[in-house]
Amino acid sequence: MDKLKVVFHINDPSRWQTALGNITNLLKDVGDDAAEVVVLTNGPSVTAYSDSALMEKIKELAQRGVRFRACRNSLKNLCSGGDVCINEENLPDFIEVVPAGITELVRLQSEGFAYVKP
Amino acid sequence: MDKLKVVFHINDPSRWQTALGNITNLLKDVGDDAAEVVVLTNGPSVTAYSDSALMEKIKELAQRGVRFRACRNSLKNLCSGGDVCINEENLPDFIEVVPAGITELVRLQSEGFAYVKP
Amino acid sequence: MDKLKVVFHINDPSRWQTALGNITNLLKDVGDDAAEVVVLTNGPSVTAYSDSALMEKIKELAQRGVRFRACRNSLKNLCSGGDVCINEENLPDFIEVVPAGITELVRLQSEGFAYVKP
Repeated sequence: MDKLKVVFHINDPSRWQTALGNITNLLKDVGDDAAEVVVLTNGPSVTAYSDSALMEKIKELAQRGVRFRACRNSLKNLCSGGDVCINEENLPDFIEVVPAGITELVRLQSEGFAYVKP
Repeated sequence: MDKLKVVFHINDPSRWQTALGNITNLLKDVGDDAAEVVVLTNGPSVTAYSDSALMEKIKELAQRGVRFRACRNSLKNLCSGGDVCINEENLPDFIEVVPAGITELVRLQSEGFAYVKP
Repeated sequence: MDKLKVVFHINDPSRWQTALGNITNLLKDVGDDAAEVVVLTNGPSVTAYSDSALMEKIKELAQRGVRFRACRNSLKNLCSGGDVCINEENLPDFIEVVPAGITELVRLQSEGFAYVKP
Protein backbone atom coordinates (compact mmCIF):
# COMPACT_ATOMS: atom_id res chain seq x y z
CA MET A 1 0.00 0.00 0.00
CA ASP A 2 1.09 3.55 -0.58
CA LYS A 3 2.50 5.39 2.37
CA LEU A 4 0.47 8.13 4.02
CA LYS A 5 2.26 11.36 3.13
CA VAL A 6 1.78 14.43 5.28
CA VAL A 7 3.46 17.73 6.01
CA PHE A 8 2.91 19.41 9.37
CA HIS A 9 3.22 23.18 9.22
CA ILE A 10 4.40 24.86 12.40
CA ASN A 11 4.86 28.63 12.47
CA ASP A 12 3.72 29.35 16.04
CA PRO A 13 6.16 28.17 18.76
CA SER A 14 3.27 27.36 21.11
CA ARG A 15 2.07 24.60 18.75
CA TRP A 16 5.15 22.37 18.96
CA GLN A 17 3.83 20.15 21.77
CA THR A 18 0.58 19.56 19.93
CA ALA A 19 2.40 18.83 16.69
CA LEU A 20 4.76 16.30 18.27
CA GLY A 21 1.81 14.62 20.00
CA ASN A 22 -0.08 14.46 16.70
CA ILE A 23 2.85 12.83 14.95
CA THR A 24 3.39 10.33 17.77
CA ASN A 25 -0.28 9.33 17.58
CA LEU A 26 -0.14 9.03 13.80
CA LEU A 27 2.90 6.74 13.89
CA LYS A 28 1.36 4.68 16.66
CA ASP A 29 -1.79 4.29 14.58
CA VAL A 30 -0.31 3.36 11.21
CA GLY A 31 3.23 2.23 12.06
CA ASP A 32 6.52 4.06 11.47
CA ASP A 33 7.03 2.47 8.05
CA ALA A 34 3.59 3.37 6.70
CA ALA A 35 3.94 7.12 6.92
CA GLU A 36 6.14 9.70 5.27
CA VAL A 37 6.09 12.66 7.65
CA VAL A 38 7.70 16.05 7.12
CA VAL A 39 7.63 18.85 9.68
CA LEU A 40 8.11 22.25 8.09
CA THR A 41 8.90 25.07 10.50
CA ASN A 42 8.98 28.72 9.63
CA GLY A 43 8.49 32.03 11.42
CA PRO A 44 9.18 32.20 15.18
CA SER A 45 8.60 28.43 15.53
CA VAL A 46 12.23 27.83 14.52
CA THR A 47 13.26 28.90 18.05
CA ALA A 48 12.36 25.34 19.09
CA TYR A 49 15.68 24.22 17.68
CA SER A 50 17.44 25.94 20.58
CA ASP A 51 15.20 24.29 23.20
CA SER A 52 16.93 21.21 24.57
CA ALA A 53 13.81 19.56 26.02
CA LEU A 54 11.97 19.81 22.68
CA MET A 55 15.09 18.72 20.82
CA GLU A 56 15.09 15.43 22.72
CA LYS A 57 11.64 14.60 21.39
CA ILE A 58 12.45 15.89 17.91
CA LYS A 59 15.56 13.72 17.76
CA GLU A 60 13.57 10.68 18.86
CA LEU A 61 11.00 11.20 16.08
CA ALA A 62 13.75 11.93 13.55
CA GLN A 63 15.29 8.56 14.39
CA ARG A 64 11.94 6.99 13.57
CA GLY A 65 11.98 8.58 10.12
CA VAL A 66 10.25 11.92 10.58
CA ARG A 67 12.00 14.66 8.61
CA PHE A 68 12.34 18.10 10.20
CA ARG A 69 12.93 21.09 7.97
CA ALA A 70 13.54 24.71 8.90
CA CYS A 71 13.10 27.80 6.76
CA ARG A 72 16.39 29.67 6.19
CA ASN A 73 14.61 33.04 5.92
CA SER A 74 13.12 32.48 9.36
CA LEU A 75 16.46 31.51 10.91
CA LYS A 76 17.97 34.71 9.52
CA ASN A 77 15.09 36.86 10.77
CA LEU A 78 15.48 35.33 14.19
CA CYS A 79 19.13 36.41 14.37
CA SER A 80 18.47 39.93 13.16
CA GLY A 81 15.53 40.56 15.45
CA GLY A 82 15.31 38.58 18.62
CA ASP A 83 17.00 37.33 21.74
CA VAL A 84 17.81 33.98 20.22
CA CYS A 85 20.12 33.41 17.29
CA ILE A 86 20.54 29.97 15.78
CA ASN A 87 23.49 29.48 13.49
CA GLU A 88 22.52 27.13 10.69
CA GLU A 89 25.85 25.32 10.92
CA ASN A 90 25.26 24.48 14.56
CA LEU A 91 22.03 22.64 13.87
CA PRO A 92 22.17 18.87 14.29
CA ASP A 93 22.14 16.65 11.20
CA PHE A 94 18.49 15.72 11.60
CA ILE A 95 17.34 19.30 10.96
CA GLU A 96 17.43 20.16 7.28
CA VAL A 97 17.47 23.82 6.27
CA VAL A 98 15.48 24.78 3.17
CA PRO A 99 15.77 28.14 1.38
CA ALA A 100 12.11 29.11 1.74
CA GLY A 101 9.61 27.29 3.92
CA ILE A 102 6.51 28.26 1.98
CA THR A 103 7.93 26.98 -1.31
CA GLU A 104 8.53 23.65 0.42
CA LEU A 105 4.90 23.53 1.67
CA VAL A 106 3.61 24.12 -1.84
CA ARG A 107 6.01 21.66 -3.46
CA LEU A 108 5.17 18.87 -1.01
CA GLN A 109 1.42 19.32 -1.51
CA SER A 110 1.90 19.20 -5.28
CA GLU A 111 3.64 15.83 -4.71
CA GLY A 112 0.58 14.48 -2.89
CA PHE A 113 1.39 15.32 0.70
CA ALA A 114 -1.59 16.19 2.90
CA TYR A 115 -1.32 19.44 4.87
CA VAL A 116 -1.97 19.62 8.59
CA LYS A 117 -1.69 22.74 10.73
CA PRO A 118 -1.53 21.62 14.38
CA MET B 1 -21.17 17.71 -11.23
CA ASP B 2 -18.84 16.34 -8.62
CA LYS B 3 -19.55 17.27 -5.05
CA LEU B 4 -17.29 19.72 -3.26
CA LYS B 5 -15.39 17.65 -0.72
CA VAL B 6 -13.89 19.33 2.32
CA VAL B 7 -12.64 18.44 5.76
CA PHE B 8 -12.69 21.10 8.48
CA HIS B 9 -9.99 20.57 11.10
CA ILE B 10 -10.81 21.86 14.58
CA ASN B 11 -8.30 21.38 17.38
CA ASP B 12 -8.84 24.62 19.29
CA PRO B 13 -12.17 24.83 21.18
CA SER B 14 -12.38 28.57 20.53
CA ARG B 15 -12.73 27.94 16.78
CA TRP B 16 -16.00 26.00 16.88
CA GLN B 17 -18.27 29.01 16.30
CA THR B 18 -16.24 30.10 13.30
CA ALA B 19 -16.21 26.58 11.90
CA LEU B 20 -19.97 26.13 12.21
CA GLY B 21 -20.52 29.53 10.61
CA ASN B 22 -18.18 28.61 7.74
CA ILE B 23 -20.05 25.36 7.10
CA THR B 24 -23.44 27.07 7.23
CA ASN B 25 -22.26 29.62 4.66
CA LEU B 26 -20.81 26.91 2.43
CA LEU B 27 -24.05 24.91 2.42
CA LYS B 28 -26.06 28.05 1.80
CA ASP B 29 -23.82 28.89 -1.14
CA VAL B 30 -23.71 25.53 -2.92
CA GLY B 31 -26.69 23.63 -1.48
CA ASP B 32 -26.72 20.77 1.02
CA ASP B 33 -26.58 18.12 -1.69
CA ALA B 34 -23.61 19.59 -3.50
CA ALA B 35 -21.09 19.30 -0.67
CA GLU B 36 -19.53 16.44 1.23
CA VAL B 37 -18.43 17.97 4.52
CA VAL B 38 -16.50 16.27 7.30
CA VAL B 39 -15.58 17.96 10.58
CA LEU B 40 -12.61 16.33 12.24
CA THR B 41 -12.03 17.31 15.84
CA ASN B 42 -8.97 16.44 17.88
CA GLY B 43 -7.13 17.85 20.89
CA PRO B 44 -9.07 19.96 23.40
CA SER B 45 -11.71 20.83 20.76
CA VAL B 46 -13.51 17.56 21.56
CA THR B 47 -14.85 19.21 24.74
CA ALA B 48 -17.49 20.77 22.49
CA TYR B 49 -19.32 17.48 22.56
CA SER B 50 -20.27 18.15 26.18
CA ASP B 51 -21.57 21.66 25.42
CA SER B 52 -25.33 21.54 24.94
CA ALA B 53 -25.63 24.87 23.10
CA LEU B 54 -23.02 23.84 20.54
CA MET B 55 -24.51 20.37 20.29
CA GLU B 56 -27.80 21.88 19.12
CA LYS B 57 -26.07 23.45 16.13
CA ILE B 58 -23.95 20.39 15.49
CA LYS B 59 -27.03 18.17 15.44
CA GLU B 60 -28.74 20.53 13.04
CA LEU B 61 -25.83 20.40 10.60
CA ALA B 62 -25.52 16.62 11.03
CA GLN B 63 -29.14 16.30 9.97
CA ARG B 64 -28.24 18.21 6.83
CA GLY B 65 -25.52 15.68 6.01
CA VAL B 66 -22.40 17.08 7.67
CA ARG B 67 -20.35 14.30 9.29
CA PHE B 68 -18.73 14.98 12.66
CA ARG B 69 -15.79 12.86 13.73
CA ALA B 70 -13.88 12.88 17.00
CA CYS B 71 -10.41 11.52 17.69
CA ARG B 72 -10.42 8.68 20.24
CA ASN B 73 -6.93 9.59 21.50
CA SER B 74 -8.17 13.08 22.30
CA LEU B 75 -11.26 11.81 24.13
CA LYS B 76 -9.02 9.60 26.26
CA ASN B 77 -6.58 12.43 26.99
CA LEU B 78 -9.48 14.60 28.04
CA CYS B 79 -10.58 12.07 30.65
CA SER B 80 -7.12 11.51 32.03
CA GLY B 81 -6.22 15.16 32.29
CA GLY B 82 -9.02 17.63 32.59
CA ASP B 83 -12.21 18.67 34.29
CA VAL B 84 -14.38 17.21 31.59
CA CYS B 85 -14.60 13.54 30.72
CA ILE B 86 -16.66 12.36 27.77
CA ASN B 87 -17.45 8.68 27.61
CA GLU B 88 -17.40 7.56 24.01
CA GLU B 89 -20.50 5.43 24.53
CA ASN B 90 -22.50 8.42 25.69
CA LEU B 91 -21.91 10.36 22.49
CA PRO B 92 -24.95 10.74 20.24
CA ASP B 93 -25.13 8.74 17.02
CA PHE B 94 -24.20 11.68 14.84
CA ILE B 95 -20.69 11.87 16.34
CA GLU B 96 -18.43 9.19 14.91
CA VAL B 97 -15.28 8.28 16.85
CA VAL B 98 -12.17 7.50 14.82
CA PRO B 99 -9.03 5.85 16.25
CA ALA B 100 -6.65 8.67 15.31
CA GLY B 101 -7.74 12.07 14.07
CA ILE B 102 -4.58 12.89 12.14
CA THR B 103 -4.74 9.66 10.15
CA GLU B 104 -8.25 10.62 9.14
CA LEU B 105 -7.11 14.08 8.00
CA VAL B 106 -4.41 12.54 5.81
CA ARG B 107 -6.66 9.82 4.43
CA LEU B 108 -9.43 12.27 3.49
CA GLN B 109 -7.01 14.59 1.69
CA SER B 110 -5.61 11.62 -0.24
CA GLU B 111 -9.21 10.97 -1.36
CA GLY B 112 -9.52 14.48 -2.76
CA PHE B 113 -10.95 16.36 0.19
CA ALA B 114 -9.82 19.98 0.54
CA TYR B 115 -8.47 20.99 3.95
CA VAL B 116 -9.72 24.04 5.82
CA LYS B 117 -8.55 25.16 9.25
CA PRO B 118 -11.12 27.63 10.59
CA MET C 1 7.60 24.05 -15.75
CA ASP C 2 4.20 24.30 -14.13
CA LYS C 3 3.60 27.25 -11.88
CA LEU C 4 3.45 26.75 -8.14
CA LYS C 5 -0.18 27.28 -7.20
CA VAL C 6 -1.10 28.23 -3.66
CA VAL C 7 -3.96 29.78 -1.74
CA PHE C 8 -3.24 31.57 1.53
CA HIS C 9 -6.17 31.48 3.94
CA ILE C 10 -6.41 34.41 6.33
CA ASN C 11 -9.29 34.60 8.78
CA ASP C 12 -7.51 36.13 11.77
CA PRO C 13 -6.57 39.82 11.34
CA SER C 14 -3.41 39.33 13.40
CA ARG C 15 -1.97 36.98 10.72
CA TRP C 16 -1.80 39.51 7.89
CA GLN C 17 1.80 40.57 8.49
CA THR C 18 2.95 36.97 8.56
CA ALA C 19 1.00 36.15 5.41
CA LEU C 20 2.40 39.09 3.45
CA GLY C 21 5.91 38.20 4.60
CA ASN C 22 5.38 34.57 3.52
CA ILE C 23 4.22 35.64 0.07
CA THR C 24 7.11 38.06 -0.36
CA ASN C 25 9.56 35.29 0.53
CA LEU C 26 7.87 32.84 -1.83
CA LEU C 27 8.03 35.26 -4.77
CA LYS C 28 11.64 36.10 -3.96
CA ASP C 29 12.48 32.41 -3.94
CA VAL C 30 10.77 31.26 -7.14
CA GLY C 31 10.22 34.50 -9.08
CA ASP C 32 6.98 36.42 -9.64
CA ASP C 33 6.21 34.57 -12.87
CA ALA C 34 6.61 31.09 -11.41
CA ALA C 35 3.85 31.29 -8.83
CA GLU C 36 0.10 31.67 -8.96
CA VAL C 37 -0.83 33.09 -5.57
CA VAL C 38 -4.32 33.73 -4.24
CA VAL C 39 -5.05 35.27 -0.84
CA LEU C 40 -8.50 34.38 0.43
CA THR C 41 -9.72 36.42 3.36
CA ASN C 42 -12.80 35.69 5.40
CA GLY C 43 -14.07 36.39 8.90
CA PRO C 44 -12.70 39.43 10.78
CA SER C 45 -9.54 39.43 8.62
CA VAL C 46 -11.40 41.45 5.99
CA THR C 47 -10.96 44.53 8.21
CA ALA C 48 -7.48 44.76 6.72
CA TYR C 49 -9.01 46.31 3.63
CA SER C 50 -9.71 49.46 5.64
CA ASP C 51 -6.13 49.67 6.95
CA SER C 52 -4.12 52.03 4.76
CA ALA C 53 -0.69 50.79 5.85
CA LEU C 54 -1.58 47.19 5.01
CA MET C 55 -3.25 48.27 1.80
CA GLU C 56 0.03 49.73 0.59
CA LYS C 57 1.70 46.34 0.83
CA ILE C 58 -1.33 44.52 -0.56
CA LYS C 59 -1.39 46.83 -3.58
CA GLU C 60 2.30 46.25 -4.16
CA LEU C 61 1.85 42.47 -4.16
CA ALA C 62 -1.26 42.75 -6.33
CA GLN C 63 0.80 44.63 -8.91
CA ARG C 64 3.20 41.68 -8.91
CA GLY C 65 0.34 39.31 -9.75
CA VAL C 66 -0.96 38.16 -6.36
CA ARG C 67 -4.76 37.97 -6.35
CA PHE C 68 -6.61 39.13 -3.24
CA ARG C 69 -10.13 37.88 -2.65
CA ALA C 70 -12.56 38.77 0.11
CA CYS C 71 -15.63 36.85 1.27
CA ARG C 72 -18.87 38.77 0.76
CA ASN C 73 -20.53 37.11 3.76
CA SER C 74 -17.71 38.37 5.96
CA LEU C 75 -17.93 41.91 4.61
CA LYS C 76 -21.65 41.92 5.38
CA ASN C 77 -21.13 40.53 8.88
CA LEU C 78 -18.56 43.22 9.53
CA CYS C 79 -21.07 45.96 8.73
CA SER C 80 -23.83 44.46 10.82
CA GLY C 81 -21.68 43.79 13.86
CA GLY C 82 -18.61 45.89 14.33
CA ASP C 83 -17.05 49.30 14.40
CA VAL C 84 -15.81 49.06 10.87
CA CYS C 85 -18.00 48.80 7.79
CA ILE C 86 -16.50 48.30 4.36
CA ASN C 87 -18.73 48.95 1.39
CA GLU C 88 -17.93 46.46 -1.33
CA GLU C 89 -18.18 49.15 -4.00
CA ASN C 90 -15.51 51.22 -2.31
CA LEU C 91 -12.92 48.48 -2.48
CA PRO C 92 -10.09 49.06 -4.94
CA ASP C 93 -9.98 47.06 -8.17
CA PHE C 94 -7.31 44.72 -6.93
CA ILE C 95 -9.61 43.25 -4.27
CA GLU C 96 -12.06 40.79 -5.75
CA VAL C 97 -15.18 39.93 -3.76
CA VAL C 98 -16.39 36.31 -3.89
CA PRO C 99 -19.82 35.15 -2.68
CA ALA C 100 -18.51 32.64 -0.13
CA GLY C 101 -14.89 32.38 0.95
CA ILE C 102 -14.98 28.72 1.97
CA THR C 103 -16.37 27.62 -1.39
CA GLU C 104 -13.45 29.40 -3.02
CA LEU C 105 -10.95 27.59 -0.75
CA VAL C 106 -12.42 24.22 -1.68
CA ARG C 107 -12.66 25.03 -5.39
CA LEU C 108 -9.05 26.22 -5.60
CA GLN C 109 -7.73 23.11 -3.85
CA SER C 110 -9.73 20.92 -6.24
CA GLU C 111 -7.90 22.75 -9.06
CA GLY C 112 -4.52 21.82 -7.60
CA PHE C 113 -3.78 24.79 -5.40
CA ALA C 114 -1.85 24.04 -2.21
CA TYR C 115 -3.35 25.40 1.02
CA VAL C 116 -1.33 27.43 3.49
CA LYS C 117 -2.67 28.92 6.73
CA PRO C 118 -0.17 31.56 7.89
